[in-house]
Amino acid sequence: MPRRADAGEPATRRATIRDVAAAAGVSIATVSRILAGNYPSAPATRTKVMRAVRELDYVANAHARALSGATSKTIAIVLNSVISPYYAHVAQGVQTQAAHHDRLCLIGTTGGDPDRELATVRLMREEHADAVILVGNVVANDDYRARMAEYAHALSAAGSQLVLCGRPPLGRDVPAIAVEFDNTGGAYAATSHLLSQGHQRILYLGHRPGYTTSEGRIAGYRNALAAFGVSNDLDLEVEGTLERNEGYRMMKRRLARGTPDFTAVFAANDQIAAGARQALREHDLRIPDDISMVGYDDLPPAEDIGLTTVHVPHEELGRTAVRLALEREGTGATGAAHVMLGTHIVVRDSVRPAVRKA
Amino acid sequence: MPRRADAGEPATRRATIRDVAAAAGVSIATVSRILAGNYPSAPATRTKVMRAVRELDYVANAHARALSGATSKTIAIVLNSVISPYYAHVAQGVQTQAAHHDRLCLIGTTGGDPDRELATVRLMREEHADAVILVGNVVANDDYRARMAEYAHALSAAGSQLVLCGRPPLGRDVPAIAVEFDNTGGAYAATSHLLSQGHQRILYLGHRPGYTTSEGRIAGYRNALAAFGVSNDLDLEVEGTLERNEGYRMMKRRLARGTPDFTAVFAANDQIAAGARQALREHDLRIPDDISMVGYDDLPPAEDIGLTTVHVPHEELGRTAVRLALEREGTGATGAAHVMLGTHIVVRDSVRPAVRKA
Repeated sequence: MPRRADAGEPATRRATIRDVAAAAGVSIATVSRILAGNYPSAPATRTKVMRAVRELDYVANAHARALSGATSKTIAIVLNSVISPYYAHVAQGVQTQAAHHDRLCLIGTTGGDPDRELATVRLMREEHADAVILVGNVVANDDYRARMAEYAHALSAAGSQLVLCGRPPLGRDVPAIAVEFDNTGGAYAATSHLLSQGHQRILYLGHRPGYTTSEGRIAGYRNALAAFGVSNDLDLEVEGTLERNEGYRMMKRRLARGTPDFTAVFAANDQIAAGARQALREHDLRIPDDISMVGYDDLPPAEDIGLTTVHVPHEELGRTAVRLALEREGTGATGAAHVMLGTHIVVRDSVRPAVRKA
Repeated sequence: MPRRADAGEPATRRATIRDVAAAAGVSIATVSRILAGNYPSAPATRTKVMRAVRELDYVANAHARALSGATSKTIAIVLNSVISPYYAHVAQGVQTQAAHHDRLCLIGTTGGDPDRELATVRLMREEHADAVILVGNVVANDDYRARMAEYAHALSAAGSQLVLCGRPPLGRDVPAIAVEFDNTGGAYAATSHLLSQGHQRILYLGHRPGYTTSEGRIAGYRNALAAFGVSNDLDLEVEGTLERNEGYRMMKRRLARGTPDFTAVFAANDQIAAGARQALREHDLRIPDDISMVGYDDLPPAEDIGLTTVHVPHEELGRTAVRLALEREGTGATGAAHVMLGTHIVVRDSVRPAVRKA
């Protein structure tokens, strides 16, 4: 029969944590902490406790105890993949702010599959996540808006909230929070930086027609050309996706046409810039000596390749999403909200003045 | 009263999806798909269906339908943060393989806090995840092993499984799967590559005593020195964490001592290599002209800085973790399993023969 810590209590066949604590000569809190596997506990103490656990056949309870308890509150973020530094840094911001509010951070990845997105949002709703944050570049067509509206209403009905990160708002009648950053302003600043150095033939690499982020960035590029009175040659706008390999392929194809008909490159993001840079090197073209280049995002490897780029506050985007969602808790507020974060150019060493033709 | 698609069926006050389909003149499947918000559906069709939904006051059901249904099966991965390319690429492998088996991928981030790790594992267990994959560098002390054993037994009791990725196995008596990669072999190959080029003073940047990954890598470094008959100068082993900024700081401190007393650098990972490279540049020291360098992981920005490094199969690590876990489903197998994946050196342009002293 187990030793008893409290003589006033009747002995029971089943050992309790109290018995274990008494047998090990430690406090109940210590036993609980050790069984839960949390730091810190001295090896000697752990040994005593685990021996008592074995002697009292308390193991079964121990395993249950170690992983039972009230479900923690969570903040969910849903994205295509965590390989993209863009998504990873937004998720990092969500994690940081969630921890600040003592919430767990759960990340669902969809691989860009709408069915997996739906299933993930459903799971997060059943999980009673305080907020479900959707991130990333989309084609904001009717189907998309209808799908998001369904999510927003269903989450709202479940006491949760839909937050869109880096996406446009859905309109007043949809209970969702939208946190955007200024794609157009940043692209305008980056293009102006090239134009003010005398570049007039600026190759735009990585346009994705219809995608909100892409449309915002190329709008800034076009606005800057117009402001500097430079005609917009559509042959300089190259369509492509936003991966490094695509940047490499786009530049290889362009250089296959012969001597570059551009003096500078606006890469739609830093990944494209890194890929294009590699293609230029294979043709003995150096940045910035032969070709000037600007990127977008200010994410790795921008710093390592000395790339002048546009800083996007990715982590702040994630933190703001969580802050806005949790500020509403208990307030009953459920309407639409919209925040636009600023972007700014970061000058490194990838731009030189253009050599003017005589 | 709603129109009816089936005259044989009595009219009901409450509109059904059948009524919506009839009113919109489309199939029930189409209504269901549109209400679920899945692609594809023509805007015109969606408009017809949503009008019918409004007319028949089917909206409440619609929201429920859109996000109700059986909970999807999930694979969970728990890591410190998704900012590290190491974790992100393992998670990408898990996501890919989970999708292959029609499972959702849930990522829990802990920020390295054991309490958050416990809460996350608990959540995943309540979520009935098919497997819970823990990733990353740890100090495999008694507390750690006891905590993992608790997880393994609790998950096993719940019909789930614990998988350790990039961590040593827990022993025969613990029902956990361990998938490791050969840290020592890769470090031996990278160090031998430097030694065979005549480098004898090789600065090891980023040793973390006690951490299993770190101990494995420095063991390979030391074994290679021994094999080449080069004495191991402990002053060349620099302790530090594995971030880019730490690599920068470690190298800045080292160079503050005066002329480098080393001809090559073994960076414990590519992030450290990138930071150290920046510090060297600030002292007008170029790679590989002045200093040779090898990294570890073969992750961004290794390719962009032309770094010779050790390739670690991160995505394969994640895919293997999922495969091994799911292979056991229904087999009743619950014992320990252990797999070691190989690593190999990737030669780029960061190593030159050492200038031999006269």
